[in-house]
Amino acid sequence: MLKVGIIGVGTVGSSVVKILQNSKDLITSKVNQEIVPVLGVVKNLSKKRDIDITLSDNIDDILNNDDIDIVVELMGGVEDAYEVVKRALLKGKYVVTANKALLAYHRYDLESISNKHLGYEASVAGGIPIVKALKEGLSANNISSIKGIMNGTSNFMLTKMIKEGFKYDEILKIAQDLGYAEADPTFDVGGHDAAHKILILASIAYNIDAKPEEILIEGIENITKDEIKFAKEFGYEIKLLGICKKIGSEIDIRVHPVFISCDDMISKVNGVMNAITVKGDMVEESMYYGPGAGGDATASAVVADIIDIARGHNDSLLGYTDNKSTYTLMSSDDIHTEYYVRIHVADEIGVLNQITKIFASKNISISTFLQNSDEKTATLLFSTHKAKEKNIKSALVEIEKLSFVKEKPSMMRIEK
Amino acid sequence: MLKVGIIGVGTVGSSVVKILQNSKDLITSKVNQEIVPVLGVVKNLSKKRDIDITLSDNIDDILNNDDIDIVVELMGGVEDAYEVVKRALLKGKYVVTANKALLAYHRYDLESISNKHLGYEASVAGGIPIVKALKEGLSANNISSIKGIMNGTSNFMLTKMIKEGFKYDEILKIAQDLGYAEADPTFDVGGHDAAHKILILASIAYNIDAKPEEILIEGIENITKDEIKFAKEFGYEIKLLGICKKIGSEIDIRVHPVFISCDDMISKVNGVMNAITVKGDMVEESMYYGPGAGGDATASAVVADIIDIARGHNDSLLGYTDNKSTYTLMSSDDIHTEYYVRIHVADEIGVLNQITKIFASKNISISTFLQNSDEKTATLLFSTHKAKEKNIKSALVEIEKLSFVKEKPSMMRIEK
Repeated sequence: MLKVGIIGVGTVGSSVVKILQNSKDLITSKVNQEIVPVLGVVKNLSKKRDIDITLSDNIDDILNNDDIDIVVELMGGVEDAYEVVKRALLKGKYVVTANKALLAYHRYDLESISNKHLGYEASVAGGIPIVKALKEGLSANNISSIKGIMNGTSNFMLTKMIKEGFKYDEILKIAQDLGYAEADPTFDVGGHDAAHKILILASIAYNIDAKPEEILIEGIENITKDEIKFAKEFGYEIKLLGICKKIGSEIDIRVHPVFISCDDMISKVNGVMNAITVKGDMVEESMYYGPGAGGDATASAVVADIIDIARGHNDSLLGYTDNKSTYTLMSSDDIHTEYYVRIHVADEIGVLNQITKIFASKNISISTFLQNSDEKTATLLFSTHKAKEKNIKSALVEIEKLSFVKEKPSMMRIEK
Repeated sequence: MLKVGIIGVGTVGSSVVKILQNSKDLITSKVNQEIVPVLGVVKNLSKKRDIDITLSDNIDDILNNDDIDIVVELMGGVEDAYEVVKRALLKGKYVVTANKALLAYHRYDLESISNKHLGYEASVAGGIPIVKALKEGLSANNISSIKGIMNGTSNFMLTKMIKEGFKYDEILKIAQDLGYAEADPTFDVGGHDAAHKILILASIAYNIDAKPEEILIEGIENITKDEIKFAKEFGYEIKLLGICKKIGSEIDIRVHPVFISCDDMISKVNGVMNAITVKGDMVEESMYYGPGAGGDATASAVVADIIDIARGHNDSLLGYTDNKSTYTLMSSDDIHTEYYVRIHVADEIGVLNQITKIFASKNISISTFLQNSDEKTATLLFSTHKAKEKNIKSALVEIEKLSFVKEKPSMMRIEK
């Protein structure tokens, strides 16, 4: 019999308890032993909970209990969770966690204690077994890229903005009312949540230990009706993507909104759903689609890790910490892609000429151009052929200084 | 060191050899031992092949070689392959196979010899690790349904028919010229290939041992411009789906073309790509998308199974043959779904009345109606609310007997 202790018994934790109890026969038939949730640790013992498990408010009741084999960490946060998971691993326990922030910062530290005892399928897109797909299903592949819609809140908002014409502020309010977005939505709409997830996937594919502070992270806060008009005009959708690409010996990791062709399968993923595409040298493109959040979907991934442990597949938990990565993180200056640029100008003679002169001086070649004018001002929307991020950024700095430019120019990347 | 023998060194077999050789470092780093392809068996030794492996034309050179740990069966066919795989398993070897027909007929016989020695990820949608997802990634779920576009040839043809207006015969010729369809295309367009695959997935999810002869299999041969017009009018796509649903204690397994809403994620899968949606009680809907065929994609799945064996995860190969299934196969008479019916009639007074009278007598309620008329005849297109397959079929038998009905009425199921 395997005994499970759960730290944090909220929505996900309660669902883990219920799956282990209600699907006991199904699970036992798969692993030939019983898996029993024996203790939950909560902050507030007096809160009423609709689950049948002994509760404590003392983490030591799990960590110091030699009978407990598997610790499920659902307490959240980074540093406190790190201390708890470290202690559990040092005691030889298995740890299953859904804590993406913890892993984005400390996965390698924790795996250096025991890289066969840490399961984290639930940390990236709970309803999609993408960690297992990368580690096992696609194990014969050299991965060339991973791209994903990994934040359901942002995707819900973008879908509503594009399909139904909502403005950013309007739909943010609705997302908050629906409980999709927090009172402070920065973590979701600012791309930070997606950044933690793409860093975890990048670490699996390339054994690269990058931190959130080291990569480019942009959110969806600046998307306006101009971008939506441009997307419709040129057959694009707008998606917030986590992107990770192998470029020679460098790994390009970033999170930002993109224009992406309506024909691309990932562009068709709407609402709160998540999807992750993986390109490998053997399978070319594959995509994994499902709910990214929600108590049951996340709990499903937690229990799948527990079942793997019970099957003795603990080396399927293994990242590649034993092998030093041969890859380095690419500087965001070196991003090489197509760009969209929005410039709000006074409608004067020679405006276009001065702007295109700056583009040309930076080796930036224009691909499409769209102009929306009203009485005295115009909004110029450009897309470019492939250019270097560094050049685009310095062009925009120069353009901003032009006397007829009314506000800071805005830029978005086009993903092919 | 693990030694691999490959029976059948065509496109897939050659790719398996190349992956094991070219990605040796990647694979060794994952399993901490070398995996070496040591011998290939082919029918024709004199044929030139662009691979670096010793060849033989005698299967016994693999089966009787005690040094060979893993046999990769890529010879195809059913009964001969069955004898070969049986012999290999009886000798204690691992077997990895891409042979869906073999498994659709003999999976349970083979697993009764050794259910921890048979890997078959490659048998269903090579580029999609769906077998692993069902056995492991979604292991915490009670599966309620599996639906899939599992035949790339048919999906390519349907996409071209709907998006570009090709007729069935025209696009079949093109598919044959492109090498997507065989000279005798029945296996693909008739739904038999998809049937083998859905039976394998059904056996994993429900441990149900159904044979192709026992399930409903229909192909795409009878789809005309009328169905395409109807689809466009009502917001449907037409897809050939393998379907497997749990209905109480019965499992409904079938393959046929369906009308499916354009909003459904699987309806957006075009061309030769495959996709499989799985609904579980915890993750609700998830979808797996990728190339279904092709040497490299299939070889990727073969090598993933080999890596699992090298990792000692041979019980991840395990089906549930130890546990008797509690499910029985549902009769196709009991299918309960919405239907589309096409009836070609002489354009006379009272036609619609007589037809709807028959529908009503069979408890079939009409949902939509569309009529295309030319000078003397009309084509009536109905969709129904949910009805029983048995009732639809007997209604069509009666309608066919009406004097004004010009040809055998045609029917298609609508998948919600």
